[in-house]
Amino acid sequence: IGGSLAKLVYFSREANSSSIGGRLNFLKFETDKIDTCIGFMRKLKADHQQLNGSRPGELCVMATGGGAFKYYDRITETLGVEVIREDEMECLIIGLDFFITEIPTEVFTYSEDSPMEFVPCPTQPASIYPYLLVNIGSGVSMIKVSGPRQFERIGGTSLGGGTLWGLLSLLTGARNFDDMLKLAEKGDNSTVDLLVGDIYGTAYNKIGLKSTHIASSFGKVYKMKRAAESDAEDGCNGDYKRHEEEEHVEGSSELPHGPGTFRPEDISRSLLYAVSNNIGQIAYLHAEKHNLPHIYFGGSFIGGHSQTMNTLSYAIRFWSKGSKQAYFLRHEGYLGAVGAFLKRQPMNWGRRNSFETQVRSGV
Amino acid sequence: IGGSLAKLVYFSREANSSSIGGRLNFLKFETDKIDTCIGFMRKLKADHQQLNGSRPGELCVMATGGGAFKYYDRITETLGVEVIREDEMECLIIGLDFFITEIPTEVFTYSEDSPMEFVPCPTQPASIYPYLLVNIGSGVSMIKVSGPRQFERIGGTSLGGGTLWGLLSLLTGARNFDDMLKLAEKGDNSTVDLLVGDIYGTAYNKIGLKSTHIASSFGKVYKMKRAAESDAEDGCNGDYKRHEEEEHVEGSSELPHGPGTFRPEDISRSLLYAVSNNIGQIAYLHAEKHNLPHIYFGGSFIGGHSQTMNTLSYAIRFWSKGSKQAYFLRHEGYLGAVGAFLKRQPMNWGRRNSFETQVRSGV
Repeated sequence: IGGSLAKLVYFSREANSSSIGGRLNFLKFETDKIDTCIGFMRKLKADHQQLNGSRPGELCVMATGGGAFKYYDRITETLGVEVIREDEMECLIIGLDFFITEIPTEVFTYSEDSPMEFVPCPTQPASIYPYLLVNIGSGVSMIKVSGPRQFERIGGTSLGGGTLWGLLSLLTGARNFDDMLKLAEKGDNSTVDLLVGDIYGTAYNKIGLKSTHIASSFGKVYKMKRAAESDAEDGCNGDYKRHEEEEHVEGSSELPHGPGTFRPEDISRSLLYAVSNNIGQIAYLHAEKHNLPHIYFGGSFIGGHSQTMNTLSYAIRFWSKGSKQAYFLRHEGYLGAVGAFLKRQPMNWGRRNSFETQVRSGV
Repeated sequence: IGGSLAKLVYFSREANSSSIGGRLNFLKFETDKIDTCIGFMRKLKADHQQLNGSRPGELCVMATGGGAFKYYDRITETLGVEVIREDEMECLIIGLDFFITEIPTEVFTYSEDSPMEFVPCPTQPASIYPYLLVNIGSGVSMIKVSGPRQFERIGGTSLGGGTLWGLLSLLTGARNFDDMLKLAEKGDNSTVDLLVGDIYGTAYNKIGLKSTHIASSFGKVYKMKRAAESDAEDGCNGDYKRHEEEEHVEGSSELPHGPGTFRPEDISRSLLYAVSNNIGQIAYLHAEKHNLPHIYFGGSFIGGHSQTMNTLSYAIRFWSKGSKQAYFLRHEGYLGAVGAFLKRQPMNWGRRNSFETQVRSGV
């Protein structure tokens, strides 16, 4: 249960099946709607008791993240089952280790040519260490993992998903994250970002900066806005904002726009680039400092979005001069939830390939 | 001549003085008003020729930064003097070396208890190396300096002054940087930032994060704005914006504000924290990677503003666990301009303490 999203994982078997395999189910809820999540869990409990009969003490909720503390009383009282709270970092790592070593179609690399290239499970599980986990939710945590359940939070940044969602909800008409990403896909950041070419009129070859390199994110906005305000008194773009809401994608604008106003699409792309690049750079620097060859990106920020993964991949390649690579996960938002789930299970409860995974969204 | 500001440095002696000392004059112009800057230089040239007579070829303009290339033709044609273009990084370093080694009341450390503690000039100039220069203008460059005129750009970030100015000009009614800083001084970032305490209800002691630690910059905005939009249809805060312009500090609002709207003061402080913290962290990581004990902050972003210096100082202390310190400069915006100026001068043209410095602003 994180700052923005609550993630729920539960295991189910087909009714009347004798297979030991089954299905891991993944759901997410907004943390602000935690009662919907708790209500869903209550229904799961009722269904389970109807199918299997009631055995007191058998069921429990494994919970982690800040919300496991904040909502502990509410969950305990509503469900009437034991709620066991586990450390967030430990759960993240247990979840990630499981995905890396047990699920063959989980970890992948991203490039524009080959968007989802799966990485096979290692033949020697110990060979995956040490690695860096960059977990991007509302904020960002960077965790060095030296071995099974050996980890340390070595850094983080407050510029994460919450920053992107928060600023874009103020700056564009988009009302949810999917709309923001759709806007970003159609945007051109060069209308708001100051590029090396804008400053030099050309590349700054001496230090290897291409003319399209972003020198300053949003670096064109201040001067263009001021110029427009000098030209006219109607600097407040209230009319512009009203137009946006009539558009095809919530918050987009394909109408002509005056000086001093900026397209929501371009703003979205610029901010997505800025946040992703920044995370990529800080991740690379931490990996360097601690000599970690592999960098895994987890957390709900990524959301399978190609532009985000492309920017993170590019940042790692750019800063490491090609020596390091970014790894992504199909269930990137559920590392902590899966880790908490696994802490209750006996070791070797599942066998590789013995179950399917299914994602449904409760949002 | 940078992406946002053009900085001008010239040397003057008192009329009829026989002292070899004199005065360095510092002016800045917005790069978009480069013609004002060029006009000022033309007047300097005319005054000089009237005082000293015309000796062709004696006067020249030493120029650096992107604008030295972009505006080369315009300056050359308008002034009719030679314009010599110098490499930007080299000029920054020459300027900084000069300030560190020659000007006793230039370099200082900042803390809330002791806001401006000057660092004496070194008795051994070679002892200042190696160091890291973090130059914060529209964007940020990080330069490793190993010895006199030995330097390498080792990193940078596009999240710099241009980002802060650009986003705040979109998000607040403030029309210039000084107003933005005044807003930030009166702000409370905890209304927009998601703190560790907001997620956990307490500190996350296991990893040493205080409850007031910023987990996610702007992390409260998205959910609060959505909640407000669910409650009412008037999600567009156009009225609110109009109020702002009647306020004491341009862009501030001391009026009560409804749900889903955020005080410009709080937004300004949050963004100032986010950008400054981020630069501090990346600077620290680069200093670690390259084993650089001293970190100097230059560039117009800082502008002598106490909150900015406090945040940068804090970030360096926090990340280095107290092992590194941030150094600031009184003329932090003029490193490149002074460096370009010095390249024309014979070595040892000035003597320590032989001249005063005077800052005037052409903005």
